[in-house]
Amino acid sequence: MQKILVANRGEIALRVMRSAREMGIKTVAVYSEADRNALHVRYADEAVFIGEAPSSQSYLVGDKIIAACQQTGAAGIHPGYGFLSENAAFARQVREAGLILIGPSPEAMEVMGNKLSAKAAALKYNIPMVPGTEEAITDVNEAKLRAVEVGFPILIKAAAGGGGKGMRIVDTPEDFEEQMGLAVSEAISAFGDGAVFIERYVSSPRHIEIQILGDTHGNIVHLFERDCSVQRRHQKVVEEAPSSVLTPEIREAMGKCAVDVARSVNYTGAGTVEFIMDEKLDFFFLEMNTRLQVEHPVTELITGIDLVKEQIRIARGEAISFKQTDLKIQGHAMELRVYAEDPANNFLPDIGTLQTYVTPKGPGVRVDDGFEQGMEIPIYYDPMIAKLITYGKDRTEAIERMVRAIDEYTITGITTTLGFGRFVMGHEAFTSGNFDTHFVKKYFTPQSLENGNDTEALIAALVMEKLLAGKKATITQPAAIAESNWVKNRKG
Amino acid sequence: MQKILVANRGEIALRVMRSAREMGIKTVAVYSEADRNALHVRYADEAVFIGEAPSSQSYLVGDKIIAACQQTGAAGIHPGYGFLSENAAFARQVREAGLILIGPSPEAMEVMGNKLSAKAAALKYNIPMVPGTEEAITDVNEAKLRAVEVGFPILIKAAAGGGGKGMRIVDTPEDFEEQMGLAVSEAISAFGDGAVFIERYVSSPRHIEIQILGDTHGNIVHLFERDCSVQRRHQKVVEEAPSSVLTPEIREAMGKCAVDVARSVNYTGAGTVEFIMDEKLDFFFLEMNTRLQVEHPVTELITGIDLVKEQIRIARGEAISFKQTDLKIQGHAMELRVYAEDPANNFLPDIGTLQTYVTPKGPGVRVDDGFEQGMEIPIYYDPMIAKLITYGKDRTEAIERMVRAIDEYTITGITTTLGFGRFVMGHEAFTSGNFDTHFVKKYFTPQSLENGNDTEALIAALVMEKLLAGKKATITQPAAIAESNWVKNRKG
Repeated sequence: MQKILVANRGEIALRVMRSAREMGIKTVAVYSEADRNALHVRYADEAVFIGEAPSSQSYLVGDKIIAACQQTGAAGIHPGYGFLSENAAFARQVREAGLILIGPSPEAMEVMGNKLSAKAAALKYNIPMVPGTEEAITDVNEAKLRAVEVGFPILIKAAAGGGGKGMRIVDTPEDFEEQMGLAVSEAISAFGDGAVFIERYVSSPRHIEIQILGDTHGNIVHLFERDCSVQRRHQKVVEEAPSSVLTPEIREAMGKCAVDVARSVNYTGAGTVEFIMDEKLDFFFLEMNTRLQVEHPVTELITGIDLVKEQIRIARGEAISFKQTDLKIQGHAMELRVYAEDPANNFLPDIGTLQTYVTPKGPGVRVDDGFEQGMEIPIYYDPMIAKLITYGKDRTEAIERMVRAIDEYTITGITTTLGFGRFVMGHEAFTSGNFDTHFVKKYFTPQSLENGNDTEALIAALVMEKLLAGKKATITQPAAIAESNWVKNRKG
Repeated sequence: MQKILVANRGEIALRVMRSAREMGIKTVAVYSEADRNALHVRYADEAVFIGEAPSSQSYLVGDKIIAACQQTGAAGIHPGYGFLSENAAFARQVREAGLILIGPSPEAMEVMGNKLSAKAAALKYNIPMVPGTEEAITDVNEAKLRAVEVGFPILIKAAAGGGGKGMRIVDTPEDFEEQMGLAVSEAISAFGDGAVFIERYVSSPRHIEIQILGDTHGNIVHLFERDCSVQRRHQKVVEEAPSSVLTPEIREAMGKCAVDVARSVNYTGAGTVEFIMDEKLDFFFLEMNTRLQVEHPVTELITGIDLVKEQIRIARGEAISFKQTDLKIQGHAMELRVYAEDPANNFLPDIGTLQTYVTPKGPGVRVDDGFEQGMEIPIYYDPMIAKLITYGKDRTEAIERMVRAIDEYTITGITTTLGFGRFVMGHEAFTSGNFDTHFVKKYFTPQSLENGNDTEALIAALVMEKLLAGKKATITQPAAIAESNWVKNRKG
């Protein structure tokens, strides 16, 4: 593979091309009408125009991507994330055209692209799933027996349900009969069907995912976890590695599970196995993403591995360049997605021109972006401007650098998530590690942004916390965050 | 220390302020007339004007620095490098003003600031010095005895000499009498004095230095080596860590020597112990620099330690934040000093305006700079524009990233050392590790720049070399570089 085409745009196109260039591989960009002046077009050795701005007419049209390869002589295609990256039909089309997709096989994509087949594959390796009944139940005694097996708190949900109707959270066995009765009668009156499912209720879920790599020689390794529990609108906005709650034993167990999930489909390339974790640190398989993730840089920083280079090596038929035992977590990395969004207005996209755009520099700061001052954020695509990634010798230093870097990052003309990121970094639930996927819903209000502007106060709070931690003192938790017990459980 | 003043300018002032900010410490900048619009002035919380552009009227005037502290309430002074950073009188003045210098004691500066007293201090700990006679000798038999003790090749130099007169390099004992005779008669005819010194001749010297930290609790640690053998006009231009020639045993021995040198003056703060190394990997003490070095970032990248933060902690009376045994070399880091200089014209400073100035980004790239597009490089100060630092999992990846980053770095309006850096990164003597401080003199001509523009060819050569290395094949050395045997000796 002397030349590859990057079937994507923005920061990820640039990021892939940088690694390719370091490997001595020529790059081809594709671009839509809206991206004529985009940085990825300038960075590539060649660029091919592929159509109108809406991605359905350009970045999503497999035929145009393959034609661009044939026109330029590119032997491989890196799909980035989004667009065609998890499209099994496209992967098959690439193979049939005699080209190489830098990604997994269409067969692996297909199995993992469907929740039922993914679950079936994972079950062959006894991967833990959220415990519950597989069939709908009507008998209250049988249901209670299953509930006790599953463990409280449990969720009773109407088999025919939807919209929260016939759904009950039950904390203790004592309450079960009464709540089941209510759920069944609600379900009957709403759907005419009283059958229910029982499943473990994860009240304080943590989103933890494991990065894996598999090659065509049968090697599969994991590169530890990323904690992506800070989400807004069910989408990640702050990610970090390692997680502040995993013990070495749980990390190893999750890593093994992730490798097994990958093995169940003979996975090749880079992939991510996502888990949900409860406060007892039990973890359950959610799904597998069969591509490079947005948040992959945090893994690169703590392992020293360039994931894109590994993807390219694997696609060339080479073995992964390291062994599982070579890897060790070094330091801590944090990523903030800098979106053109208005956090004060429910994170709605904000479109416009980057009137000022100055990125932070200095020790431990990496900015993966695809824009420069004066450019417009096109309305047609994901409104991410940049990924601001910081690295430190420990979590506190990574956070301190993130606050410092947010403060240096100057963007005018567009509302961004930078101020929101500063709020997260300064919130005690986050700094203490006591948070879950409800973080934004629980703690964030538009008013939070007004209080988040004093960098020195934030850092002083962090420094104080570190001093206290050094003295093994207990950090007092305000009542508001006492409901999560992540850190306590980790220590317990 | 709630507030510190940075008594410097340019990239190092910014770099220090970034760490201070991460620690929640307020910063004060000082600036000369030429630096009114400089970035370090904008970055600081406060800024104090201290005089005209020539540093003798501003950055070198201790009284003005101290007055600026008193005016702003800054309790500590970070001197950066250059200017007042190794000025013992200033250090004393700071102490007498009741302020804290973020650096070693004036006593330590004084001892290490003078070659004779530095050598005397080091000798107490049996630190190896370049072997030779301490007194001038006239008797040929005695001289030969000493020469055999010292080991060949040796250098005979006239005690009264200078300008190379009466200087002879002798490779074997057989040649000694004849060469000594010639040296003595040359010395007599030139200086009227036939006495000579005998010393080991280091024909292929390598400049290797050890970073140390000492605190006020008596802890002294080293942070491994930096190899700074690529120099022009006897000044470093490319630095890296670790060195490509050190074995773990020699690294440990050098580290121990460096700690002993620091201990000989009860050193506190960050310092660097410089050694010269010969092809047999014997090393000899040169001098100690009692400040932060320009090239400190490569050490930060391979250790994960923020040296400026450690300096500040030590100045506050805290212990170093880690132990010697906590440290491990991770990956490889490379630094290119991007000077406003014309490599084709004997590296003479080139002054002007940064008409275009776009810094590289992406994985493993750090740029420490103090300028932005449109700014002028003032004629009054060191013409360094930036430090381009890359990090990779091994030396090859660090070099590949350096080449990629040089290629991305866009500077117009001023001639820089970027093209020279690319020449170094692509030269087989450098990539193979077979180089010494004569590298530039031996291999670089203005014509070299013309051949250094094909990034892909350079990277392809690196990739090829790595493939060969992977197969344990011997890399064929062209005759031109066969005279140095650094890599062979390391393996032997």
